[in-house]
Amino acid sequence: MSAQPKHITALELGIPKRDELPENIQKYFDICDEKLGMVPNVLKAYSHRLTQLDSFTRFYNELMFGESGLTKLEREMIAVAVSSSNRCYYCQVAHGAAVRDYSGDPTLGELLVMNYRAAELSERERAMLDFAVKITETPHAIVEADRQALRDVGFSDLDIWDIANVAGFYNMSNRVASAVDMQPNLEYHAQNRS
Amino acid sequence: MSAQPKHITALELGIPKRDELPENIQKYFDICDEKLGMVPNVLKAYSHRLTQLDSFTRFYNELMFGESGLTKLEREMIAVAVSSSNRCYYCQVAHGAAVRDYSGDPTLGELLVMNYRAAELSERERAMLDFAVKITETPHAIVEADRQALRDVGFSDLDIWDIANVAGFYNMSNRVASAVDMQPNLEYHAQNRS
Amino acid sequence: MSAQPKHITALELGIPKRDELPENIQKYFDICDEKLGMVPNVLKAYSHRLTQLDSFTRFYNELMFGESGLTKLEREMIAVAVSSSNRCYYCQVAHGAAVRDYSGDPTLGELLVMNYRAAELSERERAMLDFAVKITETPHAIVEADRQALRDVGFSDLDIWDIANVAGFYNMSNRVASAVDMQPNLEYHAQNRS
Amino acid sequence: MSAQPKHITALELGIPKRDELPENIQKYFDICDEKLGMVPNVLKAYSHRLTQLDSFTRFYNELMFGESGLTKLEREMIAVAVSSSNRCYYCQVAHGAAVRDYSGDPTLGELLVMNYRAAELSERERAMLDFAVKITETPHAIVEADRQALRDVGFSDLDIWDIANVAGFYNMSNRVASAVDMQPNLEYHAQNRS
Amino acid sequence: MSAQPKHITALELGIPKRDELPENIQKYFDICDEKLGMVPNVLKAYSHRLTQLDSFTRFYNELMFGESGLTKLEREMIAVAVSSSNRCYYCQVAHGAAVRDYSGDPTLGELLVMNYRAAELSERERAMLDFAVKITETPHAIVEADRQALRDVGFSDLDIWDIANVAGFYNMSNRVASAVDMQPNLEYHAQNRS
Amino acid sequence: MSAQPKHITALELGIPKRDELPENIQKYFDICDEKLGMVPNVLKAYSHRLTQLDSFTRFYNELMFGESGLTKLEREMIAVAVSSSNRCYYCQVAHGAAVRDYSGDPTLGELLVMNYRAAELSERERAMLDFAVKITETPHAIVEADRQALRDVGFSDLDIWDIANVAGFYNMSNRVASAVDMQPNLEYHAQNRS
Repeated sequence: MSAQPKHITALELGIPKRDELPENIQKYFDICDEKLGMVPNVLKAYSHRLTQLDSFTRFYNELMFGESGLTKLEREMIAVAVSSSNRCYYCQVAHGAAVRDYSGDPTLGELLVMNYRAAELSERERAMLDFAVKITETPHAIVEADRQALRDVGFSDLDIWDIANVAGFYNMSNRVASAVDMQPNLEYHAQNRS
Repeated sequence: MSAQPKHITALELGIPKRDELPENIQKYFDICDEKLGMVPNVLKAYSHRLTQLDSFTRFYNELMFGESGLTKLEREMIAVAVSSSNRCYYCQVAHGAAVRDYSGDPTLGELLVMNYRAAELSERERAMLDFAVKITETPHAIVEADRQALRDVGFSDLDIWDIANVAGFYNMSNRVASAVDMQPNLEYHAQNRS
Repeated sequence: MSAQPKHITALELGIPKRDELPENIQKYFDICDEKLGMVPNVLKAYSHRLTQLDSFTRFYNELMFGESGLTKLEREMIAVAVSSSNRCYYCQVAHGAAVRDYSGDPTLGELLVMNYRAAELSERERAMLDFAVKITETPHAIVEADRQALRDVGFSDLDIWDIANVAGFYNMSNRVASAVDMQPNLEYHAQNRS
Repeated sequence: MSAQPKHITALELGIPKRDELPENIQKYFDICDEKLGMVPNVLKAYSHRLTQLDSFTRFYNELMFGESGLTKLEREMIAVAVSSSNRCYYCQVAHGAAVRDYSGDPTLGELLVMNYRAAELSERERAMLDFAVKITETPHAIVEADRQALRDVGFSDLDIWDIANVAGFYNMSNRVASAVDMQPNLEYHAQNRS
Repeated sequence: MSAQPKHITALELGIPKRDELPENIQKYFDICDEKLGMVPNVLKAYSHRLTQLDSFTRFYNELMFGESGLTKLEREMIAVAVSSSNRCYYCQVAHGAAVRDYSGDPTLGELLVMNYRAAELSERERAMLDFAVKITETPHAIVEADRQALRDVGFSDLDIWDIANVAGFYNMSNRVASAVDMQPNLEYHAQNRS
Repeated sequence: MSAQPKHITALELGIPKRDELPENIQKYFDICDEKLGMVPNVLKAYSHRLTQLDSFTRFYNELMFGESGLTKLEREMIAVAVSSSNRCYYCQVAHGAAVRDYSGDPTLGELLVMNYRAAELSERERAMLDFAVKITETPHAIVEADRQALRDVGFSDLDIWDIANVAGFYNMSNRVASAVDMQPNLEYHAQNRS
């Protein structure tokens, strides 16, 4: 029994069955199964338009796994703090699990979902999340002092660019997920809880 | 390793050691240990002033376990939805665990923490949480139509009184917890996850 | 003629007549009549469930009149500033009158109802109300610096606990009162106006 | 003793003494003394620049006392509801007294200061204040349906124009008063309390 | 073709034809035609009640063109920043054109409409607009430090009075314009674009 | 003279000179020059990391010019309404120009920048922008009724997906642009003004 809706999204998108997908996508989904134990529902949702799926996943992979001065955990921390600010169910579930996994700390995932200000963080992490949440909540009010606060704890200008892009990305995907009521795979919930 | 601070609160309250407490409080804490596997940190925090501990626990027990047309699960659901709206870390952790326990549904706890609007709820539950969250966020804007919406899904006027009181209670304890940086017992996190 | 609704609350709660109440409650109400010139409507409202009335009044009396480093006037000032922030009609009327009474200053009651920032207050009072209003409006954003600001003007950690609890209490009762449209006794309005 | 600051405004404006004012202004102030028992501080404040005083008072008198389908009480009710929304101390004190005076109902002044939604109002009054407060809080969100709601309870298009102008006027003077910390005459507080 | 509504306002105000107006108003409108190439729609709207037109234009002319330590461009900059904050279509169009005209800088008009924080301004201009926008968005929160920030960049107390009055004026006219859906003359749009 | 800052962004990103770029990017920029009369600054900014530039432009081109039930003008209208809500200077300038170009209506660009609610739009356009702005401002509050409102004016579920993705995209790029103070090419300002 679950209070989580059963659909992938609330829209009729004509999502193709797995064996109707082009071979390269089938292979990509097989790799997901292998590495994550599932194909994330966001990928299934985008698979109704393959050109979008392709450009979305390229951009996602570039930002989350590409070259950057930010660690993969830091990028996931931004993902959860932003998604909590926007109260996006899909992204808090999926990326909360990723934070628990990368950090080995189940409380960190909970803290970022519930209120990152309550967490015991390094100065660097705190400044990074303060900036990510400020551009989420009041992007029009960002001024030079906000960028300088990041430099003051050791971030380079290239790092600031990356923080802005990762935080920006989840401000996009949070809204797409909420707009279409996208539901996360149930497997995420119990992962890395202790 | 945990990103959760180690203290009970950020204040120096002179919390007495367990064996310094009066006998009746020691017994009460023993019962907590037995039933919950821990003494909730909120009780330890209030134990620095025993008259407050007494009146707080009486009031809490009356509202959460006393006579009411609301089930215990419904009262816990209100607790979590309100605490999510106020982003109170302590109460989301402690009462999120209670929702998972009472409902047997780990996703319900997550949904109420992350965004109750994304959950598949009965009409009754949805109306109850809409009212609880509205009195949390814009109490000044409550009008007769809001009360009528509860009657329309079957709540009695006595039930509405109880919803208001339970929602009110967490608006109090959320603020006390956030004001003093109260930290939940670590045991809650892994409880009833699957 | 009065634009104030005539009811105690907008709910049908089956409030017992005074002579139907248990003897100890009748005595308590007689004392109210004697000291305040009335039985506050909030007590009449809770009297439909005597176990709640008992635990509510105990908790209320403990916080407002119990041992504390805060004066009774300071606690009432918090009550009004919080109730103004939440725009609770009942509590602004009842506790505005209490502030006028304790302080002997009719303008202080008005200032706290209308905008406490416009009042000429001591540093200590200003810091206390700034904290009380911040935990009312943005409890999730409280950080150590907010607690330190109270210590800097001379409050002890036990005082901070008490400010948090008094402010928390009115965040509860404001919401209960607004949720059920509780109306204050008309006697309050003209009290201590000059 | 009063917690209200002693100044007229927090600025050094070089306000002339009464006998330094031009004769016609002295006469105008004498009439104020006679009719109101005081010269309202807002007039003293503007008297440092007589051309502004002249155009401000003409505009004020035109809107509040000129030809209109709105009664004088209705215009004062708008003044208080708008000033409450903006939490302007000066205007809530001065126009709250006017509402108590015109209506003969001390609770009406309090209700409009504290939360007009709690008052027992006619449909016409409620619609008028809902519109006035909406253009105060979210002017960008006004749509045709908001104007139609006024027509539906009997207001003409000329009345809507007047509601907009009176509400607009207090959105101006609330901000001027708050910006310069203008203080109301102490005489207002005790007027028409019972 | 234009997506801008064709009416002057959404209300039936019985605006007189030009040749039905009193001679002095006809002359005033002729001067507008000569100087501005049009009669601004706001004047036509007020012309349905000539006493209001008279007091509105006197007050407007006094604040925008009267004696002041603020330049005419500075007053127009305040007009646009405030109107942007309130999202008033009429005033952004009309005063955006005035800023482009006075400054000879088409980007300045755009920056003030879109987000004044993104503009390269002098310290004096920045402080002036920060104050004007703060009294627009959170007038209740203005404290002495906000006035001092203006003095620190060289404004006199009389200048602060003028900033407050100009910002206040547009908080009024923005709301009147939005409340009645007042539409700007089409001529403004293309003026001073390069 | 321009109040617009001279930089592309406020960060030191080591943007390569045009002739240092790979040949295929040089060609892409030549095409921009030819078609738009400039290389948009957003592309120059991303060119400091070519893998990001590639995935960003693919995704952008897919959403704005790819297969969709939305016209290109509709997609640009969403871009401006979202960017206005977020007060992003770069995107309002660049996409405001695009709306003026595609629509041939200079007032439409202004209306969407200043307040889309003031525009005379078709039912379809109004519903589309209401949804785009709601997912921008309160994404957590989207419910089935919001999606149904789009279906009611003729949008298919695939169209809803596209509206969500285009609105999502600008919620991302608005935040990146504001976070790094990205400045639009000056050429945009005077384009298609009449």
